Amino acid sequence: MPESFSGGLYVAPIAGIIALIFAGYLVARIKRVDPGTEKMKEIAEAIHEGAMAFLFREYRTLIYFILAMTIVIVVAGVMTQGAGSMKPATAIAYLVGTICSLGAGFIGMNVATLANVRTTNAARQGANQALGVAFSGGAVMGMSVVGLGLLGLGIISIIFKDPAIINGFALGASSIALFGRVGGGIYTKAADVGADLVGKVEAGIPEDDPRNPAVIADNVGDNVGDVAGMGADLFESYVGSIIAGIALGSAMSSNSVNAALLPIYIAAAGVIAAIIGTFFVRTNEGARAQSALNTGTLVASILAIAFTYFLSTSLLPDIGLNVFGATVAGLLAGVLIGKITEYYTADRFNPVKEIAKASQTGTATNIIAGISTGMMSTALPIVVIVVAILLAYKLAGLYGIALAAVGMLSTTGMVVAVDAYGPIADNAGGIAEMSGLEPGVRKITDALDAVGNTTAAIGKGFAIGSAALTALALFSAYTKAADIQAIDITQPNVVAGLFIGGMLPFLFSALTMQAVGRAAFDMIEEVRRQFRSIPGLMEGKARPDYANCVRISTGAALREMIIPGLLAVVVPLAVGLIPGLGKEALGGLLAGALVSGFLLAVMMANAGGAWDNAKKYIEGGQYGGKGSEAHAAAVNGDTVGDPFKDTSGPSLNILIKLMTIVSLVFAPLFM
Amino acid sequence: MPESFSGGLYVAPIAGIIALIFAGYLVARIKRVDPGTEKMKEIAEAIHEGAMAFLFREYRTLIYFILAMTIVIVVAGVMTQGAGSMKPATAIAYLVGTICSLGAGFIGMNVATLANVRTTNAARQGANQALGVAFSGGAVMGMSVVGLGLLGLGIISIIFKDPAIINGFALGASSIALFGRVGGGIYTKAADVGADLVGKVEAGIPEDDPRNPAVIADNVGDNVGDVAGMGADLFESYVGSIIAGIALGSAMSSNSVNAALLPIYIAAAGVIAAIIGTFFVRTNEGARAQSALNTGTLVASILAIAFTYFLSTSLLPDIGLNVFGATVAGLLAGVLIGKITEYYTADRFNPVKEIAKASQTGTATNIIAGISTGMMSTALPIVVIVVAILLAYKLAGLYGIALAAVGMLSTTGMVVAVDAYGPIADNAGGIAEMSGLEPGVRKITDALDAVGNTTAAIGKGFAIGSAALTALALFSAYTKAADIQAIDITQPNVVAGLFIGGMLPFLFSALTMQAVGRAAFDMIEEVRRQFRSIPGLMEGKARPDYANCVRISTGAALREMIIPGLLAVVVPLAVGLIPGLGKEALGGLLAGALVSGFLLAVMMANAGGAWDNAKKYIEGGQYGGKGSEAHAAAVNGDTVGDPFKDTSGPSLNILIKLMTIVSLVFAPLFM
Repeated sequence: MPESFSGGLYVAPIAGIIALIFAGYLVARIKRVDPGTEKMKEIAEAIHEGAMAFLFREYRTLIYFILAMTIVIVVAGVMTQGAGSMKPATAIAYLVGTICSLGAGFIGMNVATLANVRTTNAARQGANQALGVAFSGGAVMGMSVVGLGLLGLGIISIIFKDPAIINGFALGASSIALFGRVGGGIYTKAADVGADLVGKVEAGIPEDDPRNPAVIADNVGDNVGDVAGMGADLFESYVGSIIAGIALGSAMSSNSVNAALLPIYIAAAGVIAAIIGTFFVRTNEGARAQSALNTGTLVASILAIAFTYFLSTSLLPDIGLNVFGATVAGLLAGVLIGKITEYYTADRFNPVKEIAKASQTGTATNIIAGISTGMMSTALPIVVIVVAILLAYKLAGLYGIALAAVGMLSTTGMVVAVDAYGPIADNAGGIAEMSGLEPGVRKITDALDAVGNTTAAIGKGFAIGSAALTALALFSAYTKAADIQAIDITQPNVVAGLFIGGMLPFLFSALTMQAVGRAAFDMIEEVRRQFRSIPGLMEGKARPDYANCVRISTGAALREMIIPGLLAVVVPLAVGLIPGLGKEALGGLLAGALVSGFLLAVMMANAGGAWDNAKKYIEGGQYGGKGSEAHAAAVNGDTVGDPFKDTSGPSLNILIKLMTIVSLVFAPLFM
Repeated sequence: MPESFSGGLYVAPIAGIIALIFAGYLVARIKRVDPGTEKMKEIAEAIHEGAMAFLFREYRTLIYFILAMTIVIVVAGVMTQGAGSMKPATAIAYLVGTICSLGAGFIGMNVATLANVRTTNAARQGANQALGVAFSGGAVMGMSVVGLGLLGLGIISIIFKDPAIINGFALGASSIALFGRVGGGIYTKAADVGADLVGKVEAGIPEDDPRNPAVIADNVGDNVGDVAGMGADLFESYVGSIIAGIALGSAMSSNSVNAALLPIYIAAAGVIAAIIGTFFVRTNEGARAQSALNTGTLVASILAIAFTYFLSTSLLPDIGLNVFGATVAGLLAGVLIGKITEYYTADRFNPVKEIAKASQTGTATNIIAGISTGMMSTALPIVVIVVAILLAYKLAGLYGIALAAVGMLSTTGMVVAVDAYGPIADNAGGIAEMSGLEPGVRKITDALDAVGNTTAAIGKGFAIGSAALTALALFSAYTKAADIQAIDITQPNVVAGLFIGGMLPFLFSALTMQAVGRAAFDMIEEVRRQFRSIPGLMEGKARPDYANCVRISTGAALREMIIPGLLAVVVPLAVGLIPGLGKEALGGLLAGALVSGFLLAVMMANAGGAWDNAKKYIEGGQYGGKGSEAHAAAVNGDTVGDPFKDTSGPSLNILIKLMTIVSLVFAPLFM
């Protein structure tokens, strides 16, 4: 990176600070809302405490992980002296990356647990008031992700001006995403399954009943998994795509300074687009929540496209139109994958209806229908990604692929805002139930929550699509960093890498699913124990020990993620270092993991979403409604889908990105 | 292929004829066994008729498919004139390939439906007599596969002496395998689910009850799926691996004649080894059936290794030991994958026990445990295949990989014999039940059938492993035939191919699973109709219309396989021909499909096998035994596993081989 960058690079931290200021404004707005009755405040405080307890426990574990990675980076840097060596300063970038991602998660979780109870209270006035608070809470997460991403990345770029060091920032983001998504995914499902199985099924008390000892853990889980986990995942994709764009841009033969700056400028423009977009969500007086969110997203997307057109044609006059085309291809691919996800998971389309219909003949046919829907749903997203890749490459080479990823992620602020809105609305419903508020409040929060389910499914599709494009862009950066001329699959070591890489997502999914099983089992035992041993609990006279359930979920989540986490770091390093395999085999491994990881992630997310909504469809009165045999079958399907869509599936996003970033950062070791 | 081949090539048809003579001897032996009572003969005749009805309906559909393929080959041959062009004579090889595979299936099915009733009758004398008849029936299928494979391949080689034309023979085998495995897989599960769901669950009559209209179709299904389908699958792998060995051997720089002949010699020696092995199954007076089968397999394997050592060191004095090593690596990989399969699917090991344990908390946890077991079980087979590939390549280059496949498949005669024994024993039990024989007979056939379940699971592992190695060897042959220098995954068109290829097994599995669902639904409707409209059926006074159930299963199976079948042929051709994709993208597609197809096939086969045995484990008295909640959950798991392990999983073997062979045969079109 030449010195001439310095001026342009300042755009990143400035845009980051703007996003954070806007987040601060939103926080102030949220805080002005009344949190409601004493009972509500007490419950909200328990959820807040639980969320913070998870975060601090996670930090304690993370310190060791971060320390170990830092030492490995420094040692590898000292070992590989000379040209193309690793630089020990990468460790600094790494640390800043972890801090920024953790910061975004910390702010997001804090504000989500402020916003949930205020959403409940606002719902006592009306749906629009509640939507405003819930969405503002989500927008704080969105602004924190893009704000801290750009701020940290900008500072590291300005100080070091070396792509090899900046990569460390992405590795930091990836490490936190691993803990957030995998650990968070295990946490949320262990709490959910534990609360449901003992509470609803065994004790026969309704969902979100305050007598259920796991109810707080369950509500904490929504924040841990769907706010912090999802945010860390998209934080990783966001900075990863920008970094790949910088790396491939600075390697261009002509106008490389502007080419490297363009991704930063597009991201900065995306921040402004997202901020403007948020105002269109709130001004929709009287409209349905879904269409309000859609309008906001649409405005942000159109603005991002317009800004990108202006930026790419002025910064790169000769290839600007081509680069613009590549960026838009990525952005449109993101939108299309979201729409396809909606088709396969929303109950107004055939796939979900077919699963509901298959539930009539029992659980087995419900499961087969769900799995085959999930498998079927991989076809179109693959076509979309393939067309986007081919188009972006034809227009602007490997740089075009990186810009497609940047384009897809340019509206991250808005996507995260819409996504994080869901768990806040979900929590708000739980608080309404537990505080014994009037049924009308619950009805409003339920409506908001239902919208949240759809946005969550679309958000998952977006997260997977962006993970795939980001990983592909980082893969290209890896081949350049490792000085690889070709990764030839007619060579057996590359085939070996491809096989091992393809297998890892299967192994990773198996491990995370079994982890949920074990963690849920611990939780079930604890809930049963409390029902047995606390006198007066069922009668509502005694308070359950919520904190202990939170503790168990937290401990299990962090314990269970050690092996899958190590796998994601150790296997690529091993394949790269083992003689006879080496850097080309590692390239094969990354490609294999990218392909099978993307496919499994789409399959699991969509099968899970479809099962969930098939159950809701039956609960809406189809095929006998609640209590029918079809409903019992659909509940089973939904339970299978829980770890699919909330743990194993999303964890694969992290796996494919983390392995690629590890390979990129440690590339000098394999040369 | 130089003229000097001619002498050596005659070994193939001679060995083929020896195998067929031995098969004839076995048929005569089986026919000498008394088929039992009139009632038994009548039921056996119905099964035989049903099996033949399926075959002849299949032939009628096949004629159009074969005709279309023949025209395509001839037209492509006429279109691509000049060097490296397709030769119209390939069509002749193609036709001979289809005829040989069909012939093996026809003989195998005929003899299996002779042997089933004679096994029942022999069981009235004792377990060893019954084992002898059932295994002889299986051995006829085994000998027909290797006999007709070597005979046909030998004749085509002697006449044309051109690897490009000989490839047509493999394409013929592949076409039949498509119909046999995919159509057969749909047939068998539609009949099975239809018979079970209405008969056992709705009408409350036991399995194999003659009042069930679908009972004959169910027994026919065992033959269609597990005899003809499995046989066609291994016939394809068998000739495919030999053909790849011939192609890569004749491309060697030195001693290419002997290198090309070696695969044929090893296969011929394998025939002798298998024949000797069969005698060790029958002489085990008083021993358990499983250990008798194991002894026979072990003897055949050891003999094959010894013969291979002698052949490779004498034919290729300079690199003989290396080639021997590669061959043994393949053979051992086959054995190891079988053992790993056994670990994940037999109830004396932890995975099945864990699934049974998870059934206590309901269907959802049973399903999650089964799927995660299936996913987990992909890890070790991948490691085995990777080590075998790397070792074989290190020892003898690409030729070594082809020889590893030949080595794995050298004992095909024995593997098919052991595999086809299972459905014969299963049928024998059904006939005993339907004929109302004394319970002791059913007990003996049940014991033989239980062994058959284990051998079937191991056989499935072997079929997948051999499909992967064969496809890889054919993939190498394709890169040579299409004159490809490198398939570089840093190129976006190759990445596009990789993504599309990786997706196809998911799509193919979804389509075949949905096909089973629809076909089973047709069957359920028909069985219900007969129960409703045939007076006196439930009282045993009237005979159900078995033939109509057979007709429905047959029609559904052939109708439902059109789309997945077309997919396997059309997509590779399209990717190879579309500008911007081309032959390298097609290479990427084949690699992607190979990796994700292998993984999904292993996952589905092992999850299915594990669910099946978890159910049997509970039925053995664990966790409350039959009728308990755990059992109900395990039955659901088993039903989900049925299309996994018997339709979708095995169909993927065909998909990955067929697409590779199509690419190999039509390679000149892409140049």
